[in-house]
Order: sequence, then C-alpha cells, then structure tokens
Amino acid sequence: MDDGEDALVAAIARVLSGPGDAVRIGIGDDAAVVEPVSGELVLAADLFVEGVHFDAAISPPREIGYRAVAVNVSDLAAMAASPRYGLVSLALRPPVEAGWVVELFGGMREAADEYGLTLVGGDLSRAQETILSLALAGEVAPGAAISRSGARLGDRLVVTGSLGGSAGGLALARAARAAPAAGEAWARELAEAYRRPAARVGEARVLASAGATSMMDLSDGLARDLPRLCRASTVGARVRLASIPVAPALWAAEIPLGIDPLRLAIAGGDDYELLATLPVGAVDGARRELRARYGVSLAEIGDIIDEVEGIIAIDADGVTAPLERGGWDHFDG
Amino acid sequence: MDDGEDALVAAIARVLSGPGDAVRIGIGDDAAVVEPVSGELVLAADLFVEGVHFDAAISPPREIGYRAVAVNVSDLAAMAASPRYGLVSLALRPPVEAGWVVELFGGMREAADEYGLTLVGGDLSRAQETILSLALAGEVAPGAAISRSGARLGDRLVVTGSLGGSAGGLALARAARAAPAAGEAWARELAEAYRRPAARVGEARVLASAGATSMMDLSDGLARDLPRLCRASTVGARVRLASIPVAPALWAAEIPLGIDPLRLAIAGGDDYELLATLPVGAVDGARRELRARYGVSLAEIGDIIDEVEGIIAIDADGVTAPLERGGWDHFDG
Repeated sequence: MDDGEDALVAAIARVLSGPGDAVRIGIGDDAAVVEPVSGELVLAADLFVEGVHFDAAISPPREIGYRAVAVNVSDLAAMAASPRYGLVSLALRPPVEAGWVVELFGGMREAADEYGLTLVGGDLSRAQETILSLALAGEVAPGAAISRSGARLGDRLVVTGSLGGSAGGLALARAARAAPAAGEAWARELAEAYRRPAARVGEARVLASAGATSMMDLSDGLARDLPRLCRASTVGARVRLASIPVAPALWAAEIPLGIDPLRLAIAGGDDYELLATLPVGAVDGARRELRARYGVSLAEIGDIIDEVEGIIAIDADGVTAPLERGGWDHFDG
Repeated sequence: MDDGEDALVAAIARVLSGPGDAVRIGIGDDAAVVEPVSGELVLAADLFVEGVHFDAAISPPREIGYRAVAVNVSDLAAMAASPRYGLVSLALRPPVEAGWVVELFGGMREAADEYGLTLVGGDLSRAQETILSLALAGEVAPGAAISRSGARLGDRLVVTGSLGGSAGGLALARAARAAPAAGEAWARELAEAYRRPAARVGEARVLASAGATSMMDLSDGLARDLPRLCRASTVGARVRLASIPVAPALWAAEIPLGIDPLRLAIAGGDDYELLATLPVGAVDGARRELRARYGVSLAEIGDIIDEVEGIIAIDADGVTAPLERGGWDHFDG
C-alpha cells in the first residue's frame, strides 16, 4: 500500500477504538501496548478469503466485517474464554475503495463492541484478492479453559441453539440473486442466521461451570467437527438424528429453496453453536441456566462411546450408519 | 482447505512447539491457552503477500518464513518489547506443496527459536496467491514501551547498524537470475542482509534504558519512515547525509550491480534497523553499550528541529533540501 497506506490507516483509526484505560499505545505505532489480561492468555486467528469465506457480490462489507469478528470471537468462546484485544490484517485487491474498507471496519467495530473486544492494530497490503486476517487475544481463569480433548465414555453430547440456519441463509442469498428475496418470516430468520452469527461467549462459561469435559464451536458443521472432537478425545460418538436441533425456519424453506433441512443441520457450516460433552447428570441444570440467562436452548443429541465403535448416526427406527462418511444420507427422505 | 487442512495442520504441528510450561493448550484446538505475559501486553501483526513482500521464484520457503518472523519481531523490538507468542495464518494458492509449507514453517521456527518466540496456532486457507499473516504477542515492563511520538526539539537522531544492505541483497538476487551470483565477500554480505534481517530486540532495550524519547524500526526506508516518526511527534528533522551509515558492502557493489549506495541506504526498505531519538547527552553512552553488548554500531545522523522547518537533508557542503520529497536526489553524483 505504501503511501496510500498512511491515509487509509488514518481513515480506519477513526472507526476504531482510540487509546483508553486498557490501551496505552494504539493504532499507528509499530505495535499496540495494552493492559495485560487477567488469568491465562487465549490466542486465536482466523482467515477470511474472498471467494472462499465470503462473497463480496452477496455480502455488503459491514456484514463481512461483523461476521469475521463474531466467527473469531467464537474460537475464544469455544475455550470458555472472553475476548479482549484484536489485530486486523487486510490484504485488498485493487481498486481499493476507501468507502468499502471503512464499512468493513464499521462492521468489525460493531461486533467488537458487542463482545467487549478492542481492536488495537494490524497491517494493510494490496493483493490479488481481498483477505481479512484476524488475531484475537482473550482471557480465561487459570485452568478453566475447555479443550476438545477431555470427552469421556458415557458423557452426553450437547449442542446450543439450532443448526443449519446459516447454511439456509446462504442458500437463500444465492437464490435471491436470481429471484427477489421472500419477505416471509422464515426468510428473514435464515438471512439473519447467516449475516449475524452469535458467538456463544457467556453460554460457553455456563457449560464450563456445569462441568463440560470438552467443547468446540461448530464452524464446519457437525459431520466435520464432531470427528475432530472425537479424535482429540480418542473416543467415538453416537448421534440420534431425531434429536438434532434443526433450525425451525429450514422446514418452511424446504420447498421454496429446495433444501434438505436435516442435511443442512448436519453438514452445513457457519452456525458457530457450541458442541460440548457433559457428564450424565449435568445436562438438565445447564439447560435451565442457559435458558434463564440467555434464552438459548441446549439439545442433547447423543453420547460418547468407545473409539472403536466410531462415530455413528441412529435414525428414529434405531437403524445405525457411520456419520463421518455421510451416513446420514441414508435417512434422507 | 477443509479435509486437507487437518492433515496439513498435523504436519505443521510437528514442526512447531508442542505444549510446554508456558503453553497449556497448543495447536489443534479452537484457540491456544498460554501463560500470561508479565508487564504490559504488546501486540503486532504483519502481512507477507506473494508478489508484494516476497518472490517465491527468488526466495526459498525457509528464508521467507525466517524473514517474516524476524520482521514481525522487529515491530515489537521497536517498542522496546520482547516477543512471547505468535499466531500464523497462511493462505495458499494451489497446488499446495506440503514440502514447501513444512519448509516455510521450518524457517519460522528457526527465527522463533532465535527470538524466544513460541508459535502456538493460526489458520489455513486456500487463495489465489500465497499470503502469510503473522500476529505476535510480547511483553514490556509497565510504562517502558517507546512510541513514535515522544521526540523533542534538540534530540539527536540515531540509527543502529547500517542501511541499504537488504535492498542491495534484493538487487543482487534479481541480477543473479540473469547472471551467476558473485562469490565475493560483498555479495555474501548483501545476500545475508536481505535473507536474514536481524530484529534489534536487545538493542532496543539499551536505547530505551539510555532514555530514548521515540523509536521505530526502519521497514520502508529512512525517507518514508522518518516522516512518520516526525508526524507522530509533531516535529521536524535535519539529517546529515554524510553521517548516514551506508552498508559498507554497497560501495563494492556500486559498479557491478549498477546501484547507488546512498540512495539504497535512504530509500531502500527492509533493513529493520532502529531509528530513535535520544537526549543530547545520551548518545555516547548508548553507543558504547550497544558495541560492548551486541557489537552493533550507533550512528548519529542528525537532530530534531521544529515542525515548521520540515524534514531536511544536508550534504557535506552544507546545502539543504527537503528529504521527504526525495531531496537527497540532488546530491546523487
């Protein structure tokens, strides 16, 4: 970016947080100097590549920025940690439109404010495609982080909220490019699920307090993410398909969008709900607490079994098939 | 990267640091959990875009990785901070060569070990070009960080080491694609300056202890970076061209490479030496300390003047011209 970079940095700095109590030296220096976190330091990075993670033809820049921050905050939430500081690196393809960039940062600022995150610096460059690279620092009480690797035989498998809504929203956005978007309630719900995913920061702390033995966020869909949790914990899992919390709006969208609700709930990504394992007796208490404090549901979708049994799906009739290799396909219609 | 990502993450994890005393939860989870830093937290990010910041046709991946880490560590050094943890995000253009990626991480690991930095996580994606995005967390004693904004009227302007060597090394590498590289000592020196820039971590602490009022690293060359320091401090500067520490090997390279040593020292980037301001009486002591502890020289290249006087260059005959607008060009031969 060279000389243009200084002017763009100045424009961006106006959108972002200035120095405050926690920020000793902010944007515009070689590095940011901030108040240290209390407890342990939690670090996570996320890349958002044009054409891979977002489509600038479908999504306005404010939405792209908002989603990126929420998605990266979700990584910290998955450890039961809270966000504190963020660095934003942005590679821009020419021609650089300052208005687009300022809107992008505006969306990031909106999500950052929502999650108590302060954006303190970053880098800019030109590139052949637009790439947003975020890195966050957060905090968690010593020893309180929940990894993917602690699931134990007999633990219950739980999921917050509902699944598939974001994938439904993306399908809707793509369909809407050909036909006008439906004004129906289900369409608004799906669009919102895609545009504004919620990072479950407080919800994760409730699950941690309830004794969660492992936790992760569902970024790539249950069918991809559950095997990762199982590998990290050296266990297998049994999922009851009828218990999967399919986003209600997907049933209304089934015919107009030509989508398969259960498939989107299992294989669609970008929901950012929490997948966790809880000891047998801990589910009901966690569910009550989540509902009371956040109005968020908790579905018990299965349990942890021995590694040698693999990762299996059970349909309403008790028929089983491997989930990992798309076993749920057998149950489609 | 989807499914291939898990395999690549496993390959990369073998090159990187495993969990240790400071790393409670490392690579492969949603986020890394580490021991907090002591003092204040210092955060910096850097982008390295193929075709902008590196040329994969000239540089092997190990060198690209090494340089990227050293360059980002230099941002922390410029605040008088020490590096602790790093996150690495990597967008790769297809076809992804696992060997190239492992070598890239090998180079990053080498530099990380040298600077006491632990790489704890990151992200991977595919893209149209290869982009490396680093984010580092470091530490500095409370109140001890040196920003760009504290330079005061009458302060001496100092530079560590020598300038222009890295730009000379790049010119040499480009020339060597047409003709075989020279085996001369000057050629080895320039190549080394480009391939393995040194982040001045310890040197910055010496300058801070000596009372540095402002500091930054020279990443884009004196002609671009000095104006940034002056803007941040609301001052002007007067640079004596004869005092600029031109990398000695550039004089030997002048004819064979057809380069202008003074021009490269002023306008060539990527040296990562420190530019700082010191109170009048502090230069000699800082110079002795830097030489004794690190074998690094300190050149006094000018002083801080009033903002209205601008940023000016003075040649050996006392003739002045604005440095900011390429004023040194008048003095070229």
